[in-house]
Amino acid sequence: MSLNTFGHLFRVTTWGESHGPALGATVDGCPPNVAIDEADIQHWLDKRKPGTSKYTTQRREADAVKILSGTFEGKTTGTPVQLMIENTDQRSKDYGDIIEKFRPGHADITYYQKYGNRDYRGGGRSSARETAARVAAGGLARAALNTLAPQVEITGYMTRMGAHEIDRANFDWAQIEQNPFWTPDAKAAETWADYLDGLRKSGSSVGAIIEVTARGVPAGLGAPVYGKLDTDLAAAMMSINAVKGVEIGEGMSAAMLTGELNADEITMGPSGPEYSSNHSGGILGGISTGQDIVIRFAVKPTSSILTTRKTITKSGEDTEIITKGRHDPCVGIRAVPVGEAMMACVILDHLLLHRGQIGKNQGVIGA
Amino acid sequence: MSLNTFGHLFRVTTWGESHGPALGATVDGCPPNVAIDEADIQHWLDKRKPGTSKYTTQRREADAVKILSGTFEGKTTGTPVQLMIENTDQRSKDYGDIIEKFRPGHADITYYQKYGNRDYRGGGRSSARETAARVAAGGLARAALNTLAPQVEITGYMTRMGAHEIDRANFDWAQIEQNPFWTPDAKAAETWADYLDGLRKSGSSVGAIIEVTARGVPAGLGAPVYGKLDTDLAAAMMSINAVKGVEIGEGMSAAMLTGELNADEITMGPSGPEYSSNHSGGILGGISTGQDIVIRFAVKPTSSILTTRKTITKSGEDTEIITKGRHDPCVGIRAVPVGEAMMACVILDHLLLHRGQIGKNQGVIGA
Amino acid sequence: MSLNTFGHLFRVTTWGESHGPALGATVDGCPPNVAIDEADIQHWLDKRKPGTSKYTTQRREADAVKILSGTFEGKTTGTPVQLMIENTDQRSKDYGDIIEKFRPGHADITYYQKYGNRDYRGGGRSSARETAARVAAGGLARAALNTLAPQVEITGYMTRMGAHEIDRANFDWAQIEQNPFWTPDAKAAETWADYLDGLRKSGSSVGAIIEVTARGVPAGLGAPVYGKLDTDLAAAMMSINAVKGVEIGEGMSAAMLTGELNADEITMGPSGPEYSSNHSGGILGGISTGQDIVIRFAVKPTSSILTTRKTITKSGEDTEIITKGRHDPCVGIRAVPVGEAMMACVILDHLLLHRGQIGKNQGVIGA
Amino acid sequence: MSLNTFGHLFRVTTWGESHGPALGATVDGCPPNVAIDEADIQHWLDKRKPGTSKYTTQRREADAVKILSGTFEGKTTGTPVQLMIENTDQRSKDYGDIIEKFRPGHADITYYQKYGNRDYRGGGRSSARETAARVAAGGLARAALNTLAPQVEITGYMTRMGAHEIDRANFDWAQIEQNPFWTPDAKAAETWADYLDGLRKSGSSVGAIIEVTARGVPAGLGAPVYGKLDTDLAAAMMSINAVKGVEIGEGMSAAMLTGELNADEITMGPSGPEYSSNHSGGILGGISTGQDIVIRFAVKPTSSILTTRKTITKSGEDTEIITKGRHDPCVGIRAVPVGEAMMACVILDHLLLHRGQIGKNQGVIGA
Repeated sequence: MSLNTFGHLFRVTTWGESHGPALGATVDGCPPNVAIDEADIQHWLDKRKPGTSKYTTQRREADAVKILSGTFEGKTTGTPVQLMIENTDQRSKDYGDIIEKFRPGHADITYYQKYGNRDYRGGGRSSARETAARVAAGGLARAALNTLAPQVEITGYMTRMGAHEIDRANFDWAQIEQNPFWTPDAKAAETWADYLDGLRKSGSSVGAIIEVTARGVPAGLGAPVYGKLDTDLAAAMMSINAVKGVEIGEGMSAAMLTGELNADEITMGPSGPEYSSNHSGGILGGISTGQDIVIRFAVKPTSSILTTRKTITKSGEDTEIITKGRHDPCVGIRAVPVGEAMMACVILDHLLLHRGQIGKNQGVIGA
Repeated sequence: MSLNTFGHLFRVTTWGESHGPALGATVDGCPPNVAIDEADIQHWLDKRKPGTSKYTTQRREADAVKILSGTFEGKTTGTPVQLMIENTDQRSKDYGDIIEKFRPGHADITYYQKYGNRDYRGGGRSSARETAARVAAGGLARAALNTLAPQVEITGYMTRMGAHEIDRANFDWAQIEQNPFWTPDAKAAETWADYLDGLRKSGSSVGAIIEVTARGVPAGLGAPVYGKLDTDLAAAMMSINAVKGVEIGEGMSAAMLTGELNADEITMGPSGPEYSSNHSGGILGGISTGQDIVIRFAVKPTSSILTTRKTITKSGEDTEIITKGRHDPCVGIRAVPVGEAMMACVILDHLLLHRGQIGKNQGVIGA
Repeated sequence: MSLNTFGHLFRVTTWGESHGPALGATVDGCPPNVAIDEADIQHWLDKRKPGTSKYTTQRREADAVKILSGTFEGKTTGTPVQLMIENTDQRSKDYGDIIEKFRPGHADITYYQKYGNRDYRGGGRSSARETAARVAAGGLARAALNTLAPQVEITGYMTRMGAHEIDRANFDWAQIEQNPFWTPDAKAAETWADYLDGLRKSGSSVGAIIEVTARGVPAGLGAPVYGKLDTDLAAAMMSINAVKGVEIGEGMSAAMLTGELNADEITMGPSGPEYSSNHSGGILGGISTGQDIVIRFAVKPTSSILTTRKTITKSGEDTEIITKGRHDPCVGIRAVPVGEAMMACVILDHLLLHRGQIGKNQGVIGA
Repeated sequence: MSLNTFGHLFRVTTWGESHGPALGATVDGCPPNVAIDEADIQHWLDKRKPGTSKYTTQRREADAVKILSGTFEGKTTGTPVQLMIENTDQRSKDYGDIIEKFRPGHADITYYQKYGNRDYRGGGRSSARETAARVAAGGLARAALNTLAPQVEITGYMTRMGAHEIDRANFDWAQIEQNPFWTPDAKAAETWADYLDGLRKSGSSVGAIIEVTARGVPAGLGAPVYGKLDTDLAAAMMSINAVKGVEIGEGMSAAMLTGELNADEITMGPSGPEYSSNHSGGILGGISTGQDIVIRFAVKPTSSILTTRKTITKSGEDTEIITKGRHDPCVGIRAVPVGEAMMACVILDHLLLHRGQIGKNQGVIGA
């Protein structure tokens, strides 16, 4: 099985390790004649790049993308697009403890148990560096959406950092690009800055919640019953490193509602159905309603911290570990562009599926 | 794309509508020589069957499964297993309003917008009757696990109904089969009985949270990075009707933890690594740790309620609707065996994947 | 892996054994709103049905198809279509030798070696009865083509029986339906009648070559480089029981040509490119040219013959076998509608793929 | 759909164009702990490399492979292996006619009709340079087979060049590496040398037949009914540029045999079943018998010839074309290592499938 691949028609295979020569995304199924160049993709990679503020890892990576195939004269040809990012900061360091010890809360131990080998260099394939390849692929997906469905707008932002949640009353789309946390709540950004600074200095880390909204997605995307739009989005987000929970619309809180409160009422608007609310998160029965698609995911705190923790070695001896190195006190920050990229890939994929199977059969209400 | 199919090697395709002649599951990839007969599968279907208590829909369905292929002399042969359930209670009723009006919070409108047609008979393919096929497939998966990994034990249970959550201090595995809500908290069962009775009488409905635990799963299952065990489980659960959120281990709450609190410490036990806690839900980096695998999902309240709600018709006119009929006040109850079935299918699938690709290479700690 | 499934978007999973209760095809991905009823599919099944002439097996099967799901009010809904054929003539016979002995040239031995079990009843899953399910699925594919691309016409016919090939000078489309061999050469039909009668009486069998032509297929279908139209057609035909060779256009003889002879010259016609010849079989670089698509496949003689042959038993003892029973002296005859069905499925599948990925980007020469 | 990908568990995605910066293969699903380095893969690439004799294109390409991911300390880790080959001889030439005119018998016209764009640089993605990526992936597959099933031996060779077939009486495995045509018949090699020299000088081209034999493949590989070993091999070979026909064992000639002649008789040998002959090509019912697996494919003559041919331009005007440039008079020669590579990938893939699904259930005759 192609288990490093996601997508049905827009298929993204990521490859590469934290400290190998390069990593990248092999994208098969991108529609032809989409205008794209390296700068278009670099734009999104720069958003995810480490070292852009004191709140993210100080590893220095140019994260410069090269398009090795699939385009000609500034447009996609319809053949596979190879997006490569060379690893430049493979600091030749003393891995010390890490070679023998497993970090608690980290994939070290399970990769070893599964594969019987250990790429201790920065976590190997389990490193969050893999997400750079997702962001590159997401850049290509956005370019394709720009051609096929230019009204679609995809935005990710943080709604919680540790104990601190945003106040929805302060929600302002314009704020998102104005602070290092990609949060729409300017006041939260201030609180979080102090909070995270404290965590960083104490060598601790904290989790976060990221929300991604897709506006302008047409009704009718999604393929029941195992290729539902929400199923594919949930899988896409859960596949991101450190994610432990995924919610669509009302999410886990839907359990607390009654039917009266949960069902969004429908009225007829000038250009189609309108809804009194969006508890559904823009998806009913796995198919988009035309409302905003809203997904949230929780990122756990990174397991690389400066506190001593009990662990074992490859040879099965009890020991302790402290993880030094260049780490993110809140990996959720850099997960924002990753969540956006996954959303872009899934929306494009379902748009292509819908075009293939449905054609002109789509039901238009009131037609 | 095979969008009514899930699984990599153990592939389940469900088919059928609420009021067609039959529904079922075509299962491809079941290992050969697994002992199975119809009674083994019927056992699990009976658990999900409607009309078993006053808390579930009064639709009468025998839900009797027939094995049409793939077995010989009481064992699987390795060829596709066809599991068919005939629909018997296709009550010839007056569909009335439903033919023209869309139910708010229901897939009626999106199926119409996608496919341009309307199977108004009981929701057609979007009906929760589809989940009977999942339970049948899950029964087969359990039989295969019984042969390949008999120590695996999969149990689902309700942990929340609407406003009421269980008290973990009361958790008792033995209680789960003792009450109509499959809850491990006997006290909660009493509270819920009254609560749900009230909702049922008032024609309302409520959401729920179901947790499914798999005990005895070996370390090493799961395939990074897009076929992670948690990714596949999240997709499996999110694909169930009415599910709006999925959590692994600490779930959404992981966002609120610091790295010190979240990382489960490791010590060496007599038969392998042991963990001080299970915040990870038994999965690190997408691969099982050998601990209990714990997943939770939230089911929204059914949209079929007796309160008048605003909606529109196929021709785009504003109107109102009340949904009469035989419905579940808390669909979460019958989602419990469905969640178990999905867990069984995913665990088996990853067991088969692991056998194929890893063989004797698996790393044994301390070996 | 779903190894009983073929197709990318129009996905057909066949299930069932020769002597189980039923067999069928689960078809996922059929476009919605295609007019279809059981009679449409029965039409094609009747063409394949055994016992229609003295030249085919005398097993009596009604091969009556039932549509169990996926249609409503005479049209497909876009959900999975379940096509079931009940086995009626499961003659309770004395299997005798067959239970222990492997028939030479038959899948008996390899199925046993692979799966470790033996469904000796009529060959189990390896029986050519499985092809009834293909023909049913092909009937659905033809109905969908009739909606999406009504100009497409798919016709299969025999061009060789054993030593006897047709004379292309006698080729007459109208003849194909006029003889029990589906051959376009009326004279060949006469010769073959005598020839096959002799083989049948002596308990022997013979191979055949079937050609399938698809006319009216638009240019541009096919997906390089591993989903090429010819690749998918070759796989589709090779997957039919007893097929040992597949040729596109010039086929194996292409090896004997020089570049001058092989390359079909192009001129501009009133409605697009025209070709001086069709050595390519309507496919260049894996993509359709708009010419007739021409594929041929060779069917080996059935291994069930009345001559004594050396073989072994399950317990590894040398022995001999004669296969009595109701067999086809030339299975190629009944392979004709099967080849047509596979062609219909592949063409529809690639039409759906093309619609999804290419949209309005298709290049029009001279536009 | 991942249409530039082949394989079920050992999944190879090739990418890249004739004149882009690089091409390669992204291989997902390679088992871990397989010893591999760049030299192991280079060995097979050198066999396919252009310019090694006067009988192949004079394009100069180092075809030096780089492993960018998936290995650590000389072994595979179980993560995706990226194999990259940089294009060095992207001669900046005057493409002249080719920009506007379509070459008869070439994919130029169909790619344009499908994708609406034209990468005229050396045929873009439709160039046979894509097969270098296949050979690289095949090198990795061979290394994995070397670990998992070291007794498997895969050898390709030419059995026909144009009018000239080998004499099977002269068949000598040792000869294959001794002549530039990879033919086992030393006399044929002499005849072909003169024959091809004449064709080359006259600017003509000719087709060929390549046979690939896999020895030592265990019984039981192959997955009926659409993942049959012969189906997957047929698809693999048909997907190679210029292939027009594929045969297993007796191939197209099976049509001419009677059942008595075709069925290979079975006797019990010291280590399992033995066969009197190999008409089946080592595959019965889609599953390997343990005999040699034998497949043949026909390669058409390249369409790039020095004879004037009629064609049309993108704007739909009639014209003529002569294709100058560096071409292979018999592309079949360089198809030999490509066929071997495809065989290696398919055998490994089915070995992995078999391990996952069957385990210890395999039937042993006489056990």
